[in-house]
Amino acid sequence: MSLVRPNVRLLCRRVINQIRTYAAPGEGAIPLSKKKYVPASGTYPLGFQAGSAHVGVKASNTRFDDLALIASESPCSAAAVFTTNKFQAAPVTVSRDMLKRRSGSGVRAVVVNSGCANAVTGKGGIEDAVTMGEQTDQCFIRDNNGEDDGNGSRTIVMSTGVIGQRLPIRKIVDKLPTAYFNLGDTHDHWLSAARAICTTDTFPKLVSRTFSLPSSSEEYHLVGMTKGAGMIHPNMATLLGIICTDAPIDPKPLQEILTSAITKSFNSISIDGDTSTNDTVAILANGAAGGKPITTTSGADFQAMQETLTEFAIDLAKLVVRDGEGATKFVTIKVVNAKTYQDAKRVASTIARSPLVKTALYGKDANWGRILCATGYAEGVESVVPEETSVSFIPADGSEELKLLVKGEPEQVDEARAAEILAEEDLQILVKLSEKYDKEAVVWTCDFSHEYVTINGDYRT
Amino acid sequence: MSLVRPNVRLLCRRVINQIRTYAAPGEGAIPLSKKKYVPASGTYPLGFQAGSAHVGVKASNTRFDDLALIASESPCSAAAVFTTNKFQAAPVTVSRDMLKRRSGSGVRAVVVNSGCANAVTGKGGIEDAVTMGEQTDQCFIRDNNGEDDGNGSRTIVMSTGVIGQRLPIRKIVDKLPTAYFNLGDTHDHWLSAARAICTTDTFPKLVSRTFSLPSSSEEYHLVGMTKGAGMIHPNMATLLGIICTDAPIDPKPLQEILTSAITKSFNSISIDGDTSTNDTVAILANGAAGGKPITTTSGADFQAMQETLTEFAIDLAKLVVRDGEGATKFVTIKVVNAKTYQDAKRVASTIARSPLVKTALYGKDANWGRILCATGYAEGVESVVPEETSVSFIPADGSEELKLLVKGEPEQVDEARAAEILAEEDLQILVKLSEKYDKEAVVWTCDFSHEYVTINGDYRT
Repeated sequence: MSLVRPNVRLLCRRVINQIRTYAAPGEGAIPLSKKKYVPASGTYPLGFQAGSAHVGVKASNTRFDDLALIASESPCSAAAVFTTNKFQAAPVTVSRDMLKRRSGSGVRAVVVNSGCANAVTGKGGIEDAVTMGEQTDQCFIRDNNGEDDGNGSRTIVMSTGVIGQRLPIRKIVDKLPTAYFNLGDTHDHWLSAARAICTTDTFPKLVSRTFSLPSSSEEYHLVGMTKGAGMIHPNMATLLGIICTDAPIDPKPLQEILTSAITKSFNSISIDGDTSTNDTVAILANGAAGGKPITTTSGADFQAMQETLTEFAIDLAKLVVRDGEGATKFVTIKVVNAKTYQDAKRVASTIARSPLVKTALYGKDANWGRILCATGYAEGVESVVPEETSVSFIPADGSEELKLLVKGEPEQVDEARAAEILAEEDLQILVKLSEKYDKEAVVWTCDFSHEYVTINGDYRT
Repeated sequence: MSLVRPNVRLLCRRVINQIRTYAAPGEGAIPLSKKKYVPASGTYPLGFQAGSAHVGVKASNTRFDDLALIASESPCSAAAVFTTNKFQAAPVTVSRDMLKRRSGSGVRAVVVNSGCANAVTGKGGIEDAVTMGEQTDQCFIRDNNGEDDGNGSRTIVMSTGVIGQRLPIRKIVDKLPTAYFNLGDTHDHWLSAARAICTTDTFPKLVSRTFSLPSSSEEYHLVGMTKGAGMIHPNMATLLGIICTDAPIDPKPLQEILTSAITKSFNSISIDGDTSTNDTVAILANGAAGGKPITTTSGADFQAMQETLTEFAIDLAKLVVRDGEGATKFVTIKVVNAKTYQDAKRVASTIARSPLVKTALYGKDANWGRILCATGYAEGVESVVPEETSVSFIPADGSEELKLLVKGEPEQVDEARAAEILAEEDLQILVKLSEKYDKEAVVWTCDFSHEYVTINGDYRT
């Protein structure tokens, strides 16, 4: 693979100043400003392997890998959270059914294609998703490495890309053995898989870390990859996430830990307020590192695992915001002093969705009126009392907060200081609702730029 | 006034190719493509007059009128619908109180400034709004034309512009007599008032018509003006509307007629999903044309008036969409076969709000997947059944519909035909939910363009 890199780099140098195109990005195409988010190394969970292959799901993609395979050497506990959109893509239906049929046990792999979402494709689309899973199973069976246990497919299937077009399923099936053959456990293997699931993403999103649990002496590992860019809003838009750990966790606590982690991570980010047909975040736990299994939904290990996974999922989800389509800013919206977590989150989400707030941030305009306005029209919220509401900018460099509104009264804003704060890529907006209450929520979002319009005005071509 | 026009035209010719600026537009600055929406004449209700004056509410506005006055020669019934935002601007609070105190009777005038919203301005802002109303009353009293009836102010106050800045109330009060002196009943008077309430609007929005009622032989008149452009979403964003009629209608039926008309007009349009602190649509009925008054909320006259006003308000509201910030398309979203009107409207509104749908329309991309996707995530809707959902484009020229999805199955779309349809300024998106149901709703919206981002990235400067 290293042999072709110089050519890819040449190609990429030419497109680096153009808008992002709909294809998995080659390594050289990663914008300079985003390179710091792509890890140069990692520590990966035992017993997992990753690989990728080039299919050309989109005919225009003649060189970038667009099929990814993540596999465990031994059967895993698995759990997933799926889109709430009423139009659910075929892979969502098929993967949900598989996990239900297996009660989250004995799962071996996740297979993902980019370039086509296999959504709104009728019965044929369901058959394609089933085939994609079964043919992945066959790779293991042919390799004497995954005998049939009579419970059907062991593979979670994911697709991302254009809606309403059938998968080129023969081309995908033909290349599954290549992806299987390419499996490996090095950093480059994980990174190539993370790259293959990308669509309009400008960089692959891969995070890994080690952790421990109170009742074991073992060192455990987590790896996660995700893709996003557009159509991202609470309830996980065209967003895929795959997390693997070598800690031993039973399916039931695993599902509970994942669901809770996602509420505060992938369901707390917003790019454009759209919620897609395909989003799925799945976790596989193979227990390969040994130690005492987590079998219940309580206890010190369960709690610790929940905290660890939530923090990890937040790190992953933030990368999606960093790569929001056309984004120039990373904005943390923190709402405090709400009556409930739900109230706080609704206000934060409403601010995060407001095109007027997002374009003002893009324009580096300290237009707190729009923040307040969005606070005021958040639906179903009880905690908003105009004369108790305060709004501040919290600078990313740790310097003093800039108060914009204090208990309903506008401050004399130092515009030079505001401009300074808004010139930074990172910004926190802090909204205090009422001192009577003490619940809070955080939502991460980005700004709305000319480039977002460019990217999405011409996506299918 | 005709003497200064050539200068204004010269100035405007220079800025015509630039982005719209935050100021009431001069006549010459109206884009060529929008001129057809500005009437050259009108038929106006008896006993009403309109006028305007230049205040310079925004210091940068050195020449365009930014204060409008609409007055009736005799006391009117009045009704209004206000923003649902929890942060309500001072003029909203003051006008609501005035109408309540007067039970909608004896109202004489509407006074409006553009350039500053007088929102989030605390007690001082309330005092300013009260002053603005009372000083307008004073013009009538000084003119021996509006003696105090002991029920306080007779004026509805409106403001639109930047949030969080105090009104330059002395400058406004100083120019109220000028606006009063400029009152008149010609087409030019109405148009100048319609122009003075504009902010980022590119053209003044004025509609007039005649109508009759079943039980009278009189000819009645309606005039309406509105301003909008950004921050527009169901529940009326930074949107002001003023409607006057010379039909005789009591306050109670007038309020009911207005509320109902607004549900299907101003609350059925969406530019960017933001709902502002200031929106107000008010109606004044002075009965100057005579005939039998509408005194109850039933009967043939009441019904006819309701239908007439709904249709009229739709015409006005559509002009706001025509002038959506940066809009290049006028899109009618019709959702049929829903269980309830609310279901249909929620689906239509969700499609209208989706940045992905709106940027695809801007890019002339027949991306029905995004339409379907938005249909699928509309909240609290029961009528959506994926395998019964159909989506079509209805061309503006009356030619055959282009089916994109029929009962959940994608059509082979003729992309050349789709491109033809999307090249037109006007487009209807038709979504059929389920043949079991028969309720429908229509929402009007526009696309999301680069210019929207430009306008809103730098609004306050």
